[in-house]
Amino acid sequence: MPELRQDPLTGIWVMISPERKKRPQYLDLSRKFNLKSDICPFCERNEYMTPPEIYAVRKDNSEANKTGWKLRVVPNKYPALSAKEELNKIEDQIYNKMNGVGAHEVIIESDSHDIGIDEMEVEQIKQIFVSYKRRILGLKRDKRFKYIQVFKNHGIEAGSSIHHPHSQIIALPVIPSKVMDRLSNTKNYFKLHNRCLFCDILDYERSYNKRVLFENRDFIVFASYAPKFPFELIICPIKHTSSYERTPDKNFMSLAEILKQTMKKMGKVLDNPAYNLLLHNSPFIKNCEPYFHWYVELIPIISGTGGFELATNCYINPIPPEESIQILEK
Amino acid sequence: MPELRQDPLTGIWVMISPERKKRPQYLDLSRKFNLKSDICPFCERNEYMTPPEIYAVRKDNSEANKTGWKLRVVPNKYPALSAKEELNKIEDQIYNKMNGVGAHEVIIESDSHDIGIDEMEVEQIKQIFVSYKRRILGLKRDKRFKYIQVFKNHGIEAGSSIHHPHSQIIALPVIPSKVMDRLSNTKNYFKLHNRCLFCDILDYERSYNKRVLFENRDFIVFASYAPKFPFELIICPIKHTSSYERTPDKNFMSLAEILKQTMKKMGKVLDNPAYNLLLHNSPFIKNCEPYFHWYVELIPIISGTGGFELATNCYINPIPPEESIQILEK
Repeated sequence: MPELRQDPLTGIWVMISPERKKRPQYLDLSRKFNLKSDICPFCERNEYMTPPEIYAVRKDNSEANKTGWKLRVVPNKYPALSAKEELNKIEDQIYNKMNGVGAHEVIIESDSHDIGIDEMEVEQIKQIFVSYKRRILGLKRDKRFKYIQVFKNHGIEAGSSIHHPHSQIIALPVIPSKVMDRLSNTKNYFKLHNRCLFCDILDYERSYNKRVLFENRDFIVFASYAPKFPFELIICPIKHTSSYERTPDKNFMSLAEILKQTMKKMGKVLDNPAYNLLLHNSPFIKNCEPYFHWYVELIPIISGTGGFELATNCYINPIPPEESIQILEK
Repeated sequence: MPELRQDPLTGIWVMISPERKKRPQYLDLSRKFNLKSDICPFCERNEYMTPPEIYAVRKDNSEANKTGWKLRVVPNKYPALSAKEELNKIEDQIYNKMNGVGAHEVIIESDSHDIGIDEMEVEQIKQIFVSYKRRILGLKRDKRFKYIQVFKNHGIEAGSSIHHPHSQIIALPVIPSKVMDRLSNTKNYFKLHNRCLFCDILDYERSYNKRVLFENRDFIVFASYAPKFPFELIICPIKHTSSYERTPDKNFMSLAEILKQTMKKMGKVLDNPAYNLLLHNSPFIKNCEPYFHWYVELIPIISGTGGFELATNCYINPIPPEESIQILEK
């Protein structure tokens, strides 16, 4: 059983997950991965290589865990956390820990092994976003979970160990420190102004107009005022929405459209970079509806970080966001 | 002039530093660095390639910025921050920024281009630690600076772009969020117990003895209870010391000894990994002496991170610290 341990000095939660050691790619000291080699566990006809599916988009009458799917959600074979036991918080001398209760799932986004989001049909991208919603709603029913992180690592430099397009979901019994920071900053702003900080940012960015890349009927893409990385972008609903899972399915069509448009731009200008896509959703806390606004963060991995960022959580970005947008708009 | 911008949502400070774009290695979209090629700006006889030195350990009578040195400290040629202007805090509509006042220096640790800490003379390693102290004392006199981060990136995977052994120092006009977290956690502990959290951790770890790797008369090396990465280690003074720069020079001899011993172990067991070495020092805040305890964090880069860590500041570590120590002790 994995463990969740808290560092008393930094407050950071760490999952001690020995299961992850069993991954075929793990601790290869030569550090030379070849993601295209071997049999892909996410390809059609290899369904036996993953645990049984939890959710799928399938052609009519095709059978679960057989061929004929367009998208599958399966438990991660090497999960960081597990839902098997009751949650136990343990005082370990001067330390805090709990057993590693949680969930770790994989969304296999397509039956094509080598397709980018920029090449997918908009309907397919929409189905990815719908699957995020279905799984958040499903996992949210488990009262042990306090927060769900949806994320996508694309490319080795972004932390991916499997080439086939996929996203991941991790459900946690604690609220991570970064999520707490966003929550308390937006809450303070709301107390002071009685307005959502994010809605105010959107209003300002739309009038300023030097950091906005795209906008459609439901979503906007812009570079934030203080981006940690060059070409980092935010995609978010224009209308105030606290929880991703409350977004009507039909809106995911415009989200899919704007993401495809963005990925095409980014792929062209930055030569198909590795990237992380992060869904920043509200945690399962009462009353955060008025002040929390969900958003997607898209980070192309161009330059990497080092010890300074690890030590401080400060970032050095050589390209101002206004310039990033200019370059992307060319 | 660079800028420091704060993200209102996360509270994170970002340096927008266009100077960094001029680095020869920057934005190489092919992402294929060859660190051993080209002329090394840190090698002897290439002193003209760096800005004039601020501090050096030199053979008798050798002239500044000429050959004959054993260690040099120079301003970073592509600084993230600059000390040229007065500090100006600016309200930028709903955002906060200030001009990027600070310092960014490089410690060239040896005249050998290709030497590891595990291969250096103990006296040479001691001189590196003494140079950190001298520069912290020097930079601390500038009242605009609130915090100084000393760090070393070794190897491409650790964020290094130059192979020649070196560390870096960045002086900041703000206290970064991670430093604030450590400060408030240790302060709270002190309020509650009237004791230093770190001293209590040391006491406990020495009696528990399953996470301690080495100990000498002044320093101890151990794996923390909740390490973010496999084989992550902490090196710290046994006697409570809040500020690194208050450490007597003679103690840096035992620090050098224990670091060399640790690097030899790590190099052997992990096949000379890339690594980050981070000096966590007290910020320039009054009265934090009783509760803050400086330490060095040593992180070998074995597995890397992805979107989950970026989004949450939670980490997934497949190897429990007790096992890391067992493997290192073999």
